[in-house]
Amino acid sequence: MYSTTSKNRAVLLLSCPEHPGIISAITNGLLHNKANIAHVDQHTTDPREGIFFFRVEFELEDYDHSFENLKRDLEIMGEEYSMNWRLSSYRKTSRMAVFVSKMDHCLMELIWRSKSGEIPVEIPMIISNHPDFKDEVEAYGIPYYHIPVTPETKDEAETKALQLLEGKVDFIALARYMQILSPEFVSHYENQIINIHHSFLPAFIGSNPYHKAFDRGVKLIGATAHYVTNDLDEGPIIQQDVKRVNHRYTADDLKIAGRHVEKSVLAQAVAWHVEDKVMVHGNKTIVFA
Amino acid sequence: MYSTTSKNRAVLLLSCPEHPGIISAITNGLLHNKANIAHVDQHTTDPREGIFFFRVEFELEDYDHSFENLKRDLEIMGEEYSMNWRLSSYRKTSRMAVFVSKMDHCLMELIWRSKSGEIPVEIPMIISNHPDFKDEVEAYGIPYYHIPVTPETKDEAETKALQLLEGKVDFIALARYMQILSPEFVSHYENQIINIHHSFLPAFIGSNPYHKAFDRGVKLIGATAHYVTNDLDEGPIIQQDVKRVNHRYTADDLKIAGRHVEKSVLAQAVAWHVEDKVMVHGNKTIVFA
Amino acid sequence: MYSTTSKNRAVLLLSCPEHPGIISAITNGLLHNKANIAHVDQHTTDPREGIFFFRVEFELEDYDHSFENLKRDLEIMGEEYSMNWRLSSYRKTSRMAVFVSKMDHCLMELIWRSKSGEIPVEIPMIISNHPDFKDEVEAYGIPYYHIPVTPETKDEAETKALQLLEGKVDFIALARYMQILSPEFVSHYENQIINIHHSFLPAFIGSNPYHKAFDRGVKLIGATAHYVTNDLDEGPIIQQDVKRVNHRYTADDLKIAGRHVEKSVLAQAVAWHVEDKVMVHGNKTIVFA
Amino acid sequence: MYSTTSKNRAVLLLSCPEHPGIISAITNGLLHNKANIAHVDQHTTDPREGIFFFRVEFELEDYDHSFENLKRDLEIMGEEYSMNWRLSSYRKTSRMAVFVSKMDHCLMELIWRSKSGEIPVEIPMIISNHPDFKDEVEAYGIPYYHIPVTPETKDEAETKALQLLEGKVDFIALARYMQILSPEFVSHYENQIINIHHSFLPAFIGSNPYHKAFDRGVKLIGATAHYVTNDLDEGPIIQQDVKRVNHRYTADDLKIAGRHVEKSVLAQAVAWHVEDKVMVHGNKTIVFA
Repeated sequence: MYSTTSKNRAVLLLSCPEHPGIISAITNGLLHNKANIAHVDQHTTDPREGIFFFRVEFELEDYDHSFENLKRDLEIMGEEYSMNWRLSSYRKTSRMAVFVSKMDHCLMELIWRSKSGEIPVEIPMIISNHPDFKDEVEAYGIPYYHIPVTPETKDEAETKALQLLEGKVDFIALARYMQILSPEFVSHYENQIINIHHSFLPAFIGSNPYHKAFDRGVKLIGATAHYVTNDLDEGPIIQQDVKRVNHRYTADDLKIAGRHVEKSVLAQAVAWHVEDKVMVHGNKTIVFA
Repeated sequence: MYSTTSKNRAVLLLSCPEHPGIISAITNGLLHNKANIAHVDQHTTDPREGIFFFRVEFELEDYDHSFENLKRDLEIMGEEYSMNWRLSSYRKTSRMAVFVSKMDHCLMELIWRSKSGEIPVEIPMIISNHPDFKDEVEAYGIPYYHIPVTPETKDEAETKALQLLEGKVDFIALARYMQILSPEFVSHYENQIINIHHSFLPAFIGSNPYHKAFDRGVKLIGATAHYVTNDLDEGPIIQQDVKRVNHRYTADDLKIAGRHVEKSVLAQAVAWHVEDKVMVHGNKTIVFA
Repeated sequence: MYSTTSKNRAVLLLSCPEHPGIISAITNGLLHNKANIAHVDQHTTDPREGIFFFRVEFELEDYDHSFENLKRDLEIMGEEYSMNWRLSSYRKTSRMAVFVSKMDHCLMELIWRSKSGEIPVEIPMIISNHPDFKDEVEAYGIPYYHIPVTPETKDEAETKALQLLEGKVDFIALARYMQILSPEFVSHYENQIINIHHSFLPAFIGSNPYHKAFDRGVKLIGATAHYVTNDLDEGPIIQQDVKRVNHRYTADDLKIAGRHVEKSVLAQAVAWHVEDKVMVHGNKTIVFA
Repeated sequence: MYSTTSKNRAVLLLSCPEHPGIISAITNGLLHNKANIAHVDQHTTDPREGIFFFRVEFELEDYDHSFENLKRDLEIMGEEYSMNWRLSSYRKTSRMAVFVSKMDHCLMELIWRSKSGEIPVEIPMIISNHPDFKDEVEAYGIPYYHIPVTPETKDEAETKALQLLEGKVDFIALARYMQILSPEFVSHYENQIINIHHSFLPAFIGSNPYHKAFDRGVKLIGATAHYVTNDLDEGPIIQQDVKRVNHRYTADDLKIAGRHVEKSVLAQAVAWHVEDKVMVHGNKTIVFA
């Protein structure tokens, strides 16, 4: 799943209302364009009248010729079946901005997985409301923009960030970024902003989840990666995981132990996102993992 | 931890304010009574002025003589150090009542682990607000009491249950018992009623947690065993676990998948309780697992 | 995945050499028979020249008419594409024999999940080389056949078992059955005998895996469900799981802790098998879980 | 467990033959030196005639005066009870050399956890048989020694490494170091060399475990951290963990997925080692986690 390096590989991700013969129609279109199917994933909310979700990964025998042809075919088919669809090529790498505040574990994990090629993603910039990680990030050759945020300058700061991002990135990872983005900002990147929340949502919504977890005496702590919407900590969940703890953990221990869950959950969510494996449906995700 | 069959084994569980030399004092007392220590577990909330928790499992060389002697020594020491303590012997098996409503998976797991000797517990009675499992339970030779509960008869029903339990059981497991017990009832079995809640608390407090989990689109479902207090689903947590789910699970699938988590979490909590491994401190537990 | 009760649902499971347009061909055939597709799962060992594996679950609008028609269409298509295929209906429940020796935890788990409807399987008989669980099993209304096995009587015992099974069961679960079946016996139920091995294979092949695990000082113990072949403990693995242990566990403790892993791993493998989710390819399985 | 910053804290780790009153003797000694006990962990192989293992973490009211006094008391007690013991102070940080070959994920994880203070360890040097990570490592201010190893130069290379290490490090982590160390080398660091093996030992001993795992079709892959002895992959296991995989994983995918298990298992083992939580007994470890 990670390791394919074929440059002729592409992915089609789509959803539409259920329709008899929809899979035949799509696979016929692929066959017509000489696509050899590698993976198919499918989901439906109801086989007769629900929503149909589909992901197909394939290799094009004659990529240069077929990719654009297939796109045109999909435009026609998309109209006919009222599809939301996206055709992506392994030849084009996703571009991710990372927003960070004062903890760098998630940031470093994303940089490391990008650099090692484990996640096929480029990081054209890091944006932070603090200057702390400037040297560390620039050592990797990644531009670091320090945009301070105060209640008074928040609008201005977001405008500046949007200008920096414009045309340079496809999506954003909030790697323990402790500012709440405005609805205006979020509207520019709908389902394209992934946040890591440091609890097993919906437990411990809001701030200081590890202190709340400590006070409640839970035996597992967790982390949740979700798309950002305008409802705090309520966006569609992409991935969650937990780690066992016990009575010996102080609130600070929980924070430290939680870091490992946070960074692996966020990195997994980012990987699925760039591999076109996540679809949003209402307030939930379909993840073709 | 499970398998010792020595009849000379006993367990001392205690808590008290921290005091210099407290461990020496206890272990000297044990030495004096010819106890060979097998396991020691200890916890403190603060080494200088916190609360001290201690569990020690040992074998008495001359059980018949030493057990009562040790008890007398502990009475004196308990006064001196303001201890809460409990001395238990492997010769005496705990007695548990199980309360159940209309789902039998937790009940059956408890019966099976009792019967197989895996949990050293006797089950002198099952109490249910429904008649459904009467035959199934009586086939194991366990009395089954059907005590219907309506808003009008709730007091009466609890009184009847208390009479049945009186002197017959040491603690109660609520194995998916869907009635809320009154403060009056709970006061008779403080920290002696273990409930299984079918969610990863504090997520999805209250009724229908699987439907709530389905609606929220979580990627893990869980279960929580806790002591019952007068705050619904807020009692000290003993054990929690989770299971990974995905977009293919319907709300009904979540319920079915959750059963396995529920029954293993409850059984684990019951095992620790009867092995004297759980101490309550405020709204949390120390579990010497 | 577990909870659908539609009586119009059927499953097609197939494998064949890769062929351009194979998915179109199959889904066209389903469309032609008015099948509404609920789930598709697919795998290929190589998109151009590998082996293609496919599972599709669907609802037939006019079941009585379409099921047999579809079967005829598949016979033709199966010839054309050199398919191995199996068409199963939710109207027909699988029948499983359980073989057991002297530990009943796996047996009881299978009976419980069958009885509760969680696994859609009937258990027409239990066969054991010991008489121990006769009463327990017969209380559930299941015939129990005690067939003792000694080196001298092994052939005879297997012949007797085969006669009992003939036409009565579709597959066999070895629920801690401690006899090795002969190649002759296995040949009657190729890829239809599921064994639970009490270790994380390929660690601790052969007898006494818990003692070996104890001696090696592992920090996790496991269990493995696999199809039985003529190479001991070498058959295609269906499912595995592990449980964390520590230095306090004696060899006996490992056995007890391992029971829970064994029973859940075996039950999961049996569920996938009866839901037609497992395909064997060489010495491995494709599991469309 | 991680977060304590008290400079008055110390740890005593010891083992000796069981002896009545041994815990009293030790805790009396601590009391006498005004030590407030924070954590006690204990294990015995047999309460009457086995080996006794003990770890106690405490705060000294008057550190400067008490630490050396306590040491002297322990020397006397150690003689009396034939103890192996080690008294460590939070004031002194362990020093670890990391050996690496051509994969840097484990190395980077160790550097990151050291640098962030999560593991209280210094890294005075990295030694590699390849030059690849020189720049990356030196950017963190850590000396990087490239010592090539060929069959002809192996002795010489080990001699050179021993000279570099002499007096500079307390223990060694082999972070995917693909050379086998000689018995002579190992004898200098008995139970002080931690290796990460990229499989769930004892499954897949030796080279290429991921290919072997792929060929066997396992459903979980794992990693094992162990002390190095002269029997390849047979040393005392400190920690193990696994990750679920499926039929879609190629051998290369297994390698990539395995990295995350490897790095977290090795980092955990290193953390326990520097926190004086691991004791070796024969070919096993007692881990007071």
